[in-house]
Amino acid sequence: MAFPEEALVGCGGCDPCHSGAEHCDYHHDLAETVPGPSTERVAELARELDLYAVFGLAERDPHDAGVLYNAAAVVGPDGIQGTYRKLHLGSLPWVTEGVTFQPGNALPVFETRFGPIGVMICYDFWFNPELTRLLALKGERLILNCCATFAGPGKRDYMVQTTATRAQENLCYAVSANQVGGPDSANSYAAGRLQEARAPDFLGHSTIAGPAFPRFSHIYAEAGDHEELVTATLSFEKLHRWETIFPWRDWRATHQSPTSELIASEFQKLARGS
Amino acid sequence: MAFPEEALVGCGGCDPCHSGAEHCDYHHDLAETVPGPSTERVAELARELDLYAVFGLAERDPHDAGVLYNAAAVVGPDGIQGTYRKLHLGSLPWVTEGVTFQPGNALPVFETRFGPIGVMICYDFWFNPELTRLLALKGERLILNCCATFAGPGKRDYMVQTTATRAQENLCYAVSANQVGGPDSANSYAAGRLQEARAPDFLGHSTIAGPAFPRFSHIYAEAGDHEELVTATLSFEKLHRWETIFPWRDWRATHQSPTSELIASEFQKLARGS
Repeated sequence: MAFPEEALVGCGGCDPCHSGAEHCDYHHDLAETVPGPSTERVAELARELDLYAVFGLAERDPHDAGVLYNAAAVVGPDGIQGTYRKLHLGSLPWVTEGVTFQPGNALPVFETRFGPIGVMICYDFWFNPELTRLLALKGERLILNCCATFAGPGKRDYMVQTTATRAQENLCYAVSANQVGGPDSANSYAAGRLQEARAPDFLGHSTIAGPAFPRFSHIYAEAGDHEELVTATLSFEKLHRWETIFPWRDWRATHQSPTSELIASEFQKLARGS
Repeated sequence: MAFPEEALVGCGGCDPCHSGAEHCDYHHDLAETVPGPSTERVAELARELDLYAVFGLAERDPHDAGVLYNAAAVVGPDGIQGTYRKLHLGSLPWVTEGVTFQPGNALPVFETRFGPIGVMICYDFWFNPELTRLLALKGERLILNCCATFAGPGKRDYMVQTTATRAQENLCYAVSANQVGGPDSANSYAAGRLQEARAPDFLGHSTIAGPAFPRFSHIYAEAGDHEELVTATLSFEKLHRWETIFPWRDWRATHQSPTSELIASEFQKLARGS
């Protein structure tokens, strides 16, 4: 069960974050360590209901209480598995998250009873395809994108087509769980204030996509723009039918390994500014 | 003006390539060095007509006549700029290109009068988003995908949505120029024989996509499934409107540089098999 970005706390800014302050009580009071009260409560429910849940929250660093992350927790029947911490944080004046949070520094794959899964948060997923690709190379077969994506021209197609493309290009399943409503809407998760320059509402249109052999890409479910739960039955065995024809991870590790090395060295050169 | 993959020679296999032979006269006779007769002739036309042309061909290595590449040449009013050589080659039994050709080893950006452009070839573009991303990080504002993509269930949406997603995620323009027809069709570019397991026809549906501020993603033109020329007027100045709000290359080089380093080191670890 996937919930949107910052589902526990709302995606709002606060006055200190808007002004670029180094500390704000509002977000520090909302943040929790993981494990912490909320993830422990969800873990009880996950055990009771025998399900996995992935949901956005404000995570406090366990070693430095002054550091917060825009994170998504993975919780299952066997307990709390950990968090993914958003890597690309949006900047002022669009959003305050670059002030409120520190970026993460890891791309973990989480093992579940059904297979390996990955988690992305919004901007990481929409505009940085190399992240989902890395998780896929590391073995994930299902990517969960917890997002808070605004409405805007063409944004419904953007939600569906990007989710479908991430699934197709990595031959995995992809789920985008988006917020609905906005600060002016009774449907909103968000308690905070948003920049006037942006659309006032979140887009909704949560999407579940992935291969459906012999299709490379299929939309399994799409939500509307109000709060609702959409579901799909996904089969990792059916997914594996593509892998038998198209074992791309193996190719990249064997006869395509010079290309894998070229890609790595090109990213390295760019990261070093050379 | 963008033409499909192997537009000069056709995408067919030949018996020696199908049997995995190390050499085939058919492809060696079709291949040319660059510069060579075909690229020189196109360069004359490009000068005369004052246009740029990108087109697929079989390229012979200038230093080793036994080595061929599945390449696309970039030719402009000022002459032949070079080639992109396909990195991910398809394997038997699907296609023979992994037998016929050697992979390239570079991701060049080509300077044009209008701005920096990149070239991809088919599989490189559809299933390997990190390649277009690297070209975009290196500055390209227009990516030309010369492809020979087969028809199949859902493939029209695949063509359009993946081209649109590559443009959106890199805030650049993207063009997929695809073949039409097939070996059983009078419309075909391809003279060769194709594997029976695959769809008999190429998909067509060449697509021109990209941001159209304030849209992140817009389909500027889409072809049908017969031979035709589709055009669009793209403005690099209009594209730049997104960059003023969303200067993501700068961010990745400045406050997001730890994330750029993480991505580079993750690709490096995977390339080394660790």
